[in-house]
Amino acid sequence: MKFGRSALTLLSVAYTASSATAWTTANVARNRFAAAALFSTITEVEGETATESFRLKFKTDSGVISPWHDIPLKDGDNYNMVVEIPKMTKAKMEVATKEENNPIAQDIKKGKLRDYHGPIFWNYGCLPQTWEDPNEKHPELGFFGDDDPIDVVEIGSKSLEMGSVTPVKALGVLAMIDDGELDWKVLAVQVDDPLAKEYNDIDDVPDSVKAGVREWFRWYKTPDDKPINAFGFDEKFLDKKAADEVIEETHDAWKKLKAGDTDAGKLWTGN
Amino acid sequence: MKFGRSALTLLSVAYTASSATAWTTANVARNRFAAAALFSTITEVEGETATESFRLKFKTDSGVISPWHDIPLKDGDNYNMVVEIPKMTKAKMEVATKEENNPIAQDIKKGKLRDYHGPIFWNYGCLPQTWEDPNEKHPELGFFGDDDPIDVVEIGSKSLEMGSVTPVKALGVLAMIDDGELDWKVLAVQVDDPLAKEYNDIDDVPDSVKAGVREWFRWYKTPDDKPINAFGFDEKFLDKKAADEVIEETHDAWKKLKAGDTDAGKLWTGN
Repeated sequence: MKFGRSALTLLSVAYTASSATAWTTANVARNRFAAAALFSTITEVEGETATESFRLKFKTDSGVISPWHDIPLKDGDNYNMVVEIPKMTKAKMEVATKEENNPIAQDIKKGKLRDYHGPIFWNYGCLPQTWEDPNEKHPELGFFGDDDPIDVVEIGSKSLEMGSVTPVKALGVLAMIDDGELDWKVLAVQVDDPLAKEYNDIDDVPDSVKAGVREWFRWYKTPDDKPINAFGFDEKFLDKKAADEVIEETHDAWKKLKAGDTDAGKLWTGN
Repeated sequence: MKFGRSALTLLSVAYTASSATAWTTANVARNRFAAAALFSTITEVEGETATESFRLKFKTDSGVISPWHDIPLKDGDNYNMVVEIPKMTKAKMEVATKEENNPIAQDIKKGKLRDYHGPIFWNYGCLPQTWEDPNEKHPELGFFGDDDPIDVVEIGSKSLEMGSVTPVKALGVLAMIDDGELDWKVLAVQVDDPLAKEYNDIDDVPDSVKAGVREWFRWYKTPDDKPINAFGFDEKFLDKKAADEVIEETHDAWKKLKAGDTDAGKLWTGN
């Protein structure tokens, strides 16, 4: 599957909180965009919000696609971010890496739907076609990947919709160590945000934002009696160049996974 | 009213989440301590938890007291902290400065009971017999006080009960600027915490804790579409000496308020 630049600009979202099943809601939404798009990717709800049945599926005119494997990582110099958790919300939504076509679902822990204890103050999601390989030990940090696509924190002013695919500019990257696993956080801003003109590298980002993101991720599990998280590289955000390199490494790891060169375990890779 | 050191050690709490009224619950609790205490301060619930009717009242054998005006600020070299919001909870409980005897109540904003959007990761409360005078402009920062007792963030490992009075060691202080008002946050550790042996001044406190507290207070109102808070003195925690001085200044301001030398406005001062 190939996505042209213009088509990606038209990626559109039909997210509804209702208990729509099958493709009813989506068909309505798709029609709204049919005239303008060469083709468009839409999202469709199955099941009910805030239940185990909820699934946000991704689709094009050719059928269901995987937001992890079928959306290209790059959009020119930028990256496509798949938004999982909109700014100021707290339901722990994520690309279900083990399910067919990897829809977005709410994470379940110990049999219960998982929410953050408080809202996240930024848009949160992942980069498609990346993978933090749990078999690869980071040469400097000595930790293995967390078996997920790489995470992105988008610091723009708008709340982005769950399931939207948004071109973002990478600004830096933070090496979070969570329970012995390496879990990179890419700091990014969506290209249409007014701040995107001012922010080109990590030093352009205010310290208040960098510290805010870092401390949010350091403390967020402590209400569950878990320890604070740690960070590599002296707890600093690495710059844009490092972010591009880390993303490239996770993209390479994904390529090997997708090609069947790395054991996928229970992950759904479409192979 | 005078509190001896030994009596304060025995300050006890009878906090119940039930809808107890009058002093029934309290009498039971007081009896538990009667044998040991010269006199003891107990708390008693009126009304129902998580409603506008909830009040946590403070009492000794001589009757109802104000946790703001009748508990001494100092306990030897330490300070008495009145715990308002226990660690990992989010109901915005506070000493009701405008009500008779200043019970603890849940703050109300725009007619609704106020909760933080997420839990606070430390015990939170205030120091009795202090006041951040809204008529006094800080000579360096240029902001006026927020009209409340000074706030304390207790960073020990235990969750402290709402309404408990806990001797704490002051370690430092952060000058928060919230909506144009100066709102100092004293960083402290309760004297019985194992960490109290190691922590004697602000440099003994891990950067992760200092940054965590600062960022929590910087960002916590943003889900209400409010801007991030600012901090004076280069966003740094000032040291123990400065904390002692700031507390002393707010104690002096309280003394003038209590003596009637400063206009109390709608505050209940027992005068």
